[in-house]
Amino acid sequence: MSKQDEVPYKIYLAEHEAPTAWYNMRADMKQKPAPILNPGTGKPVTPEELGHVFCDELVKQELDNDTAWFPIPDEIRKFYRMFRPSPLVRAYFLEKALGTPAKIYYKFEGSNTSGSHKLNSAVAQAYYAKAQGLKGVTTETGAGQWGTALSMACAFFGLDCRVYMVKCSYEQKPFRREVMRTYGASVTPSPSMETEIGRKINAEHPGTTGSLGCAISEAVEKAVTTEGYRYVLGSVLAQVLLHQSIIGLEAKTAMDKYGVKPDVIIGCAGGGSNLGGLISPFMGEKLRGEKDYRFIAVEPASCPSLTRGRYAYDFCDTGRVCPLQKMYTLGHDFIPSANHAGGLRYHGMSASLSELYAQGLMEARAVEQTSVFAAAQQFARTEGILPAPESSHAIRAAIDEALRCKAEGKEETILFGLTGTGYFDMVAYQKFNDHEMSDYVPTDAELEASFAKLPKIG
Amino acid sequence: MSKQDEVPYKIYLAEHEAPTAWYNMRADMKQKPAPILNPGTGKPVTPEELGHVFCDELVKQELDNDTAWFPIPDEIRKFYRMFRPSPLVRAYFLEKALGTPAKIYYKFEGSNTSGSHKLNSAVAQAYYAKAQGLKGVTTETGAGQWGTALSMACAFFGLDCRVYMVKCSYEQKPFRREVMRTYGASVTPSPSMETEIGRKINAEHPGTTGSLGCAISEAVEKAVTTEGYRYVLGSVLAQVLLHQSIIGLEAKTAMDKYGVKPDVIIGCAGGGSNLGGLISPFMGEKLRGEKDYRFIAVEPASCPSLTRGRYAYDFCDTGRVCPLQKMYTLGHDFIPSANHAGGLRYHGMSASLSELYAQGLMEARAVEQTSVFAAAQQFARTEGILPAPESSHAIRAAIDEALRCKAEGKEETILFGLTGTGYFDMVAYQKFNDHEMSDYVPTDAELEASFAKLPKIG
Repeated sequence: MSKQDEVPYKIYLAEHEAPTAWYNMRADMKQKPAPILNPGTGKPVTPEELGHVFCDELVKQELDNDTAWFPIPDEIRKFYRMFRPSPLVRAYFLEKALGTPAKIYYKFEGSNTSGSHKLNSAVAQAYYAKAQGLKGVTTETGAGQWGTALSMACAFFGLDCRVYMVKCSYEQKPFRREVMRTYGASVTPSPSMETEIGRKINAEHPGTTGSLGCAISEAVEKAVTTEGYRYVLGSVLAQVLLHQSIIGLEAKTAMDKYGVKPDVIIGCAGGGSNLGGLISPFMGEKLRGEKDYRFIAVEPASCPSLTRGRYAYDFCDTGRVCPLQKMYTLGHDFIPSANHAGGLRYHGMSASLSELYAQGLMEARAVEQTSVFAAAQQFARTEGILPAPESSHAIRAAIDEALRCKAEGKEETILFGLTGTGYFDMVAYQKFNDHEMSDYVPTDAELEASFAKLPKIG
Repeated sequence: MSKQDEVPYKIYLAEHEAPTAWYNMRADMKQKPAPILNPGTGKPVTPEELGHVFCDELVKQELDNDTAWFPIPDEIRKFYRMFRPSPLVRAYFLEKALGTPAKIYYKFEGSNTSGSHKLNSAVAQAYYAKAQGLKGVTTETGAGQWGTALSMACAFFGLDCRVYMVKCSYEQKPFRREVMRTYGASVTPSPSMETEIGRKINAEHPGTTGSLGCAISEAVEKAVTTEGYRYVLGSVLAQVLLHQSIIGLEAKTAMDKYGVKPDVIIGCAGGGSNLGGLISPFMGEKLRGEKDYRFIAVEPASCPSLTRGRYAYDFCDTGRVCPLQKMYTLGHDFIPSANHAGGLRYHGMSASLSELYAQGLMEARAVEQTSVFAAAQQFARTEGILPAPESSHAIRAAIDEALRCKAEGKEETILFGLTGTGYFDMVAYQKFNDHEMSDYVPTDAELEASFAKLPKIG
């Protein structure tokens, strides 16, 4: 009997074992992510410039490539106690159903009301906004998890919260809107007629169901034109990956406690916040040459930024009001096919993760949504948790890796991030249950047309 | 600093601390609940008679008023590890928001995919059905939590699951239906045209939105007329309260660990499964004269079985196909007003709880739904969890008790059951958010008309 057979089904760290600082992976990268550029000057943005958009403390975190550890303020640690430490689960039932010699673990971030890991960063960003004396914040949301998380955090700290929700999600998920309203947030479908950029996008693309890129443009415009407001973002940014490192730090502490070392670490990847957070401390060890791991980013085949995108400077938003980041991108006005369900619909990828991928420190794969929902259903029936479509991308890859282990007779240990629950995704599940779900993969010609609009830099 | 200030925000028992047997409160009752009667003979039902409807092992549990402890089979304990032990949470944030000297704890049963405590009994009932070699089970569901729980349990044990869902919930909650289908269950709106009783109810009450009582009749009819099927029920029955004792046993173990004794224990009450389960071990101590506690059952003012019902023999279902139970009842064809949101819509109350209430061992109060949703909103914004409307009845009473403690300057300890989450109740939340929710309390004349139909027994 190996030591791993004694691991309980769920590992909950005690509150006193919870991390007290976030880990900044960039500090251990020899080749740092490329600097964020001001599209007007073509030069790296200054803290002053970013300070018009983001809270001051978050600007510092965004631009700091050197500090490895950021202490977590007490107020944030208190809020974390509401829903953290989150459980690390040993997927005994799934292992048995697959008949695999692999040991599968998942870090489950879905048992809070936002339904996902997004709350980890929402709390931090709301706290810093409040500490700076702001009145409120604006943001965008796609699948709705980030908007819900932010509305919860704003209710707690007494901040106004204005959410631009990608129109197709707004229509498919009216209940998400009501959760946000229950927490006191205002929710507007994007593109709206409330902002200049919204009116422009509506005029150019009549009937568009929106994209994260559009919604970001609207939220940023609203923030910079409203006194006492700043913009906050739920993924992509380095500051968000910093806050999300809590996922990986807890997972690593729990595994270390039982002497378990993962061989493969898997996360779904939209903007990269969950994946970046989960892999952080493990990647740190790899960067410092202490240990080796395989990392796999899993993205939708309908929005394949890492596997089919260009590593280039691009705008973070469709409206081109945001700075430029060097990242794997499908082009700033790429919008996934309307048949794509759920989140993971951002056109780009976190700059840090893009750089790690470019250096060959991480793998990536794209999966089609019908195979993702098949994995979701199998997981629900064996492990009992109804996963979010986003999270199910990681499940798909974890199952595939476990089946590879079975074929090769290898007893590897797999860790994946189960970022959230699918309670608000039942329209998509219904399509799958009724055998009406289809796949769409963008053609090379479509992507080339999108790449042609990339800004010319350097 | 009192000892209670050192209690963590959440107490998770380790898996080895989990209860290994269910506790049967009836064993310690001097005056037992009145026997279940066969409506045809007017005599107590025999195990053989009940065996046509329920699994054999569950019949034994149902009729056993003497055995105090039932060991939990290994297969059930394994399944419990998926979602249990559930957390006991100290409501530090709510206490602070209320400015109360009271210490508030809640046992949170909502962090599993069924969204409620119902899974505790669903697993047990599915297990015994499988062990008996059955093909499948039938049941009814109102708010949808029980149907979801049962579909999860049936998927796990490989049983067919047929759910009759109260029509108004079926229409208000299409996503609940999809969760059940994702777990492989078939879901039919009730009253349907599939059963004799369903056709009869539809003919007599055209356009009815259904009731739990109707749906029970349909599910029972289907079970007794289909080879290899039995009927299972999510509340009311003594066997269900037995399985739900896991809630109270875990809560008591966690509180004992920190030397905390609750003064007041509060649960919402529809059929009584959550309340009966939560109070079980505490009531046991009260019945044995070891300790004293206040117990409060909280029910909707629109379906007030304990506070305004008759303590009499009545049918468990509208169609009068089920046996008779002595219980607090509003009459077997009482249907709550259509403006009543959520569950807690059963016309009667568990026989054990009815007897305890009749003996003055438990209090009861009825609350109106607008005040319930106000409590739900306050709780969501302070404690972070979006509660089910049902659970919010207990929150309402807990807040009221905490405010009483504040007014009286008393440092009492309050424990309440937070049975589930409200993710599938956003239609009701939307009404509340839009200030369109109203209250309806049945008139005395309405209740008298309903009581007139009670069967004449003894």
